[in-house]
Amino acid sequence: MTPTSTSTGMTNGTTAPTTPAYDELTRRNERAWRLEHLGSIAGWDQAANMPPKGNEARAAALAELGSLLHGLATDPLLPELLDRAEQEPLDPLQRANLREMRRDWVANNALPGGLVEQRTLATARCEHAWRTQRPANDWAGFVENLRPVVRIAREEAICLSQATGLAPYDALIDRFEPGMRATELARLFGDLRGWLPDLIARVRERQAGETVLRPTGPFDRAAQKALGEAAMRLLDFDFDAGRLDESTHPFSGGVPEDVRLTTRYLDDDLQQALYGVIHETGHARYEQSLPRSLLGQPVARARSFGIHESQSLSFEMQLGMHPGFIGLLVPLIEQHFGHQAAFAPANLARLLTRVHPGFIRVDADELTYPAHVMLRFEIEQALIGGEIEVEDIPTLWDQKMAAYLGVDTRGNFRDGAMQDVHWPSGAFGYFPCYTLGAMYAAQWFAAMRRATPDLDARIAAGDLAPVFGWLREHIWLPASRWPTPELALRASGEPLNPAHYRAHLERRYLG
Amino acid sequence: MTPTSTSTGMTNGTTAPTTPAYDELTRRNERAWRLEHLGSIAGWDQAANMPPKGNEARAAALAELGSLLHGLATDPLLPELLDRAEQEPLDPLQRANLREMRRDWVANNALPGGLVEQRTLATARCEHAWRTQRPANDWAGFVENLRPVVRIAREEAICLSQATGLAPYDALIDRFEPGMRATELARLFGDLRGWLPDLIARVRERQAGETVLRPTGPFDRAAQKALGEAAMRLLDFDFDAGRLDESTHPFSGGVPEDVRLTTRYLDDDLQQALYGVIHETGHARYEQSLPRSLLGQPVARARSFGIHESQSLSFEMQLGMHPGFIGLLVPLIEQHFGHQAAFAPANLARLLTRVHPGFIRVDADELTYPAHVMLRFEIEQALIGGEIEVEDIPTLWDQKMAAYLGVDTRGNFRDGAMQDVHWPSGAFGYFPCYTLGAMYAAQWFAAMRRATPDLDARIAAGDLAPVFGWLREHIWLPASRWPTPELALRASGEPLNPAHYRAHLERRYLG
Repeated sequence: MTPTSTSTGMTNGTTAPTTPAYDELTRRNERAWRLEHLGSIAGWDQAANMPPKGNEARAAALAELGSLLHGLATDPLLPELLDRAEQEPLDPLQRANLREMRRDWVANNALPGGLVEQRTLATARCEHAWRTQRPANDWAGFVENLRPVVRIAREEAICLSQATGLAPYDALIDRFEPGMRATELARLFGDLRGWLPDLIARVRERQAGETVLRPTGPFDRAAQKALGEAAMRLLDFDFDAGRLDESTHPFSGGVPEDVRLTTRYLDDDLQQALYGVIHETGHARYEQSLPRSLLGQPVARARSFGIHESQSLSFEMQLGMHPGFIGLLVPLIEQHFGHQAAFAPANLARLLTRVHPGFIRVDADELTYPAHVMLRFEIEQALIGGEIEVEDIPTLWDQKMAAYLGVDTRGNFRDGAMQDVHWPSGAFGYFPCYTLGAMYAAQWFAAMRRATPDLDARIAAGDLAPVFGWLREHIWLPASRWPTPELALRASGEPLNPAHYRAHLERRYLG
Repeated sequence: MTPTSTSTGMTNGTTAPTTPAYDELTRRNERAWRLEHLGSIAGWDQAANMPPKGNEARAAALAELGSLLHGLATDPLLPELLDRAEQEPLDPLQRANLREMRRDWVANNALPGGLVEQRTLATARCEHAWRTQRPANDWAGFVENLRPVVRIAREEAICLSQATGLAPYDALIDRFEPGMRATELARLFGDLRGWLPDLIARVRERQAGETVLRPTGPFDRAAQKALGEAAMRLLDFDFDAGRLDESTHPFSGGVPEDVRLTTRYLDDDLQQALYGVIHETGHARYEQSLPRSLLGQPVARARSFGIHESQSLSFEMQLGMHPGFIGLLVPLIEQHFGHQAAFAPANLARLLTRVHPGFIRVDADELTYPAHVMLRFEIEQALIGGEIEVEDIPTLWDQKMAAYLGVDTRGNFRDGAMQDVHWPSGAFGYFPCYTLGAMYAAQWFAAMRRATPDLDARIAAGDLAPVFGWLREHIWLPASRWPTPELALRASGEPLNPAHYRAHLERRYLG
């Protein structure tokens, strides 16, 4: 699906349209896409630039745009247009686009307006209170606000289930990872549960006797920014189509034509900003490389949250922590911060792969991270299914943290179930995507090594073209052309197979 | 008109509305205001941040928003709503708001769609070609593109004239400076023509023997930015409600709740960036201080381009070049750039008031600037009136530049009639606002000195509150509450009177 036209490529050009309903739908998508552009840039600006007194007006402006876009997405004419378009003589690409349009329609029209409003109010209240309740370790207060959020999420799951024919929790997952089902996740995490805790234990034992040097700060922030930009150039980020800025919570925002990355800098630690930038650059290159002539159509969107994370983790974990890549990074680090013994490639590799079970998901290392996700998946599945209530979370949390990571979280709600914004904001079904991304990334690199048997030597020699070429061909340009399982199959010859992930971790941590 | 409510203050709150049409109009204005917010921020970002490959998508997004806002502004229901609102029991503030709504309606509905489209195409073509024709001094090529722009502007003037009852050129001026007429401008510039060339000659003679030291660069850009921000703090700019960034063409953008200033830095000159920042801070403080509870309604908008310029020039010329203010600035300059003999206050004052007749309006000093504007007013008035054609401009330009400034512009089109973007972009009627702003600024300071007889001593002592307090009360908070002549009368006890401007210039340059 290489772009071949400067128009949307989705209409019939100058000949008389034989697909009037489909063409009307593409025009509507393009219009919404253009307006969303303004929201994306204003949203980035809100995080990266906006002074505090601008917030109220910005929130009102974004809400007005949201309401406008909601009106476009729920236009009563859409069902008939979609039905008529189904009967038109579409080519396969157009048919894939129509499939995605219908997915959007279901997502935007499945919930009654009253429920959307209830959700907005309940999540806003819960998130707002959470910002002070978390530092105060106020679980009892938090429960009062989380309970209505869960109740509404269950109703939402039932509405989405009725609209899609999926089981309720599946319908929530499908918003973030289309085609993924709870039974499949249970299989994947079941597999993981079988070997991960033991692998963590073996790696910790092995690392106990290792000596690792930590780089000595402080690290000048302007130099850290320059280093981050140098790493982005190494990763072929297109600076004519994007920027690097700062924000409290790093993210990749903006639009595919102009991707806005953010990071944050610590004075005494290089790794967080640098690997944050490498991670976000993976998201960014996916966006920058989506099929240009189709932008504005849903078929040209990134496939899913899991596939998106497979790109950031391909960059951060598969490539970024690859010993050959670390060898490329060291001269850049030393160019900005001079020589330190800790910058020796072998030492940096040991530092980056150091395993430390801890409380906090976002601070977790590569090996313990999936345990945090597994635990959340198990708890939220039971919560949405009505098997447990909000009050039951801490006991389960404590048990699972002890079993999977050997850490004691009793009474520490702040660094336990209160640590993430996902549940307060109603994003049930999202967490699994992080580990799906890690699994997919391992699977992509296994496929890359079959296609380029000397891949590791090429990376070490600074030739990253086989990596980017493979991702571009198999992930970036296909975008949403195929359902996710078919995307994986076409890219790697098999559906998602967690064996590659296990093999990657065992090779890296025990090899 | 101090804001007293956190709502718009324009509706009747919780009581049953007795002004339904008026209330509907305020809601529509608020909705457009929120959407315009996104365009303002995206427009600022385009100038300050955007990488080149983002431009096409940004232009499409802004055009989509423009088309959406045009649809709102030309809704066929508006005339009836406006008429019904006229009959409703409105208080004087609401009635002023309705007057401005009607002004907007006329501006947005006077031109037939075909003419708007022709104008867009002709000005885009002229501006685009001008960017290469100007450096090439290609007058003959430029004329071909300017001719249709002028033809369309004449048609536009006639349409606006029919909609407003004004004379054609008056109708063009009224877009930028409501209430101002060509006969009044002719009187003001006629007065100026009587004394300005002679004043320039006398000042040049007097300055011929003066010794002035120039500060020695290079001047570090980060230090220049810090100095600019220090000057903005001195001028009470609210950094919780705005920022300073860089762009090729400095401007004050964003929204009143979050004003985005830009400047540009030269390595070998401090003055341009510093006084650019001081100028833009005048625009910014006007925006930051518009009546907060009414924002979103046309009555809360800045009054006009001339009144806006009176704020930037109050800051840059009246205050910024005031010897007392220079005394406040010097410690800031020395804090960032150390001591130089050239930084002595008396020397800086001489440097800032140095008069150099030249070709370029935007580079002109305070005293010769109005001559550039007078010349453009005279030429464009004749052009719109059909007394001359585009081909006649250079001869007139050469004659007037020789007469007013004693400079020879023959054959130098690049630094002559091709130097400004205004005419290529169709903005006839705009130029006079620059000098109206300078005249108003002098009149405001004359009124301030009557209200605060020791104003000059207060400024020298670092007490700028009398300046900001006067501007807030008389210009910023009234916003568009009064027609411009009434605003001037209420603020200063008289309509626009150029005698204050002359007195200011004679005192500063001959005093």
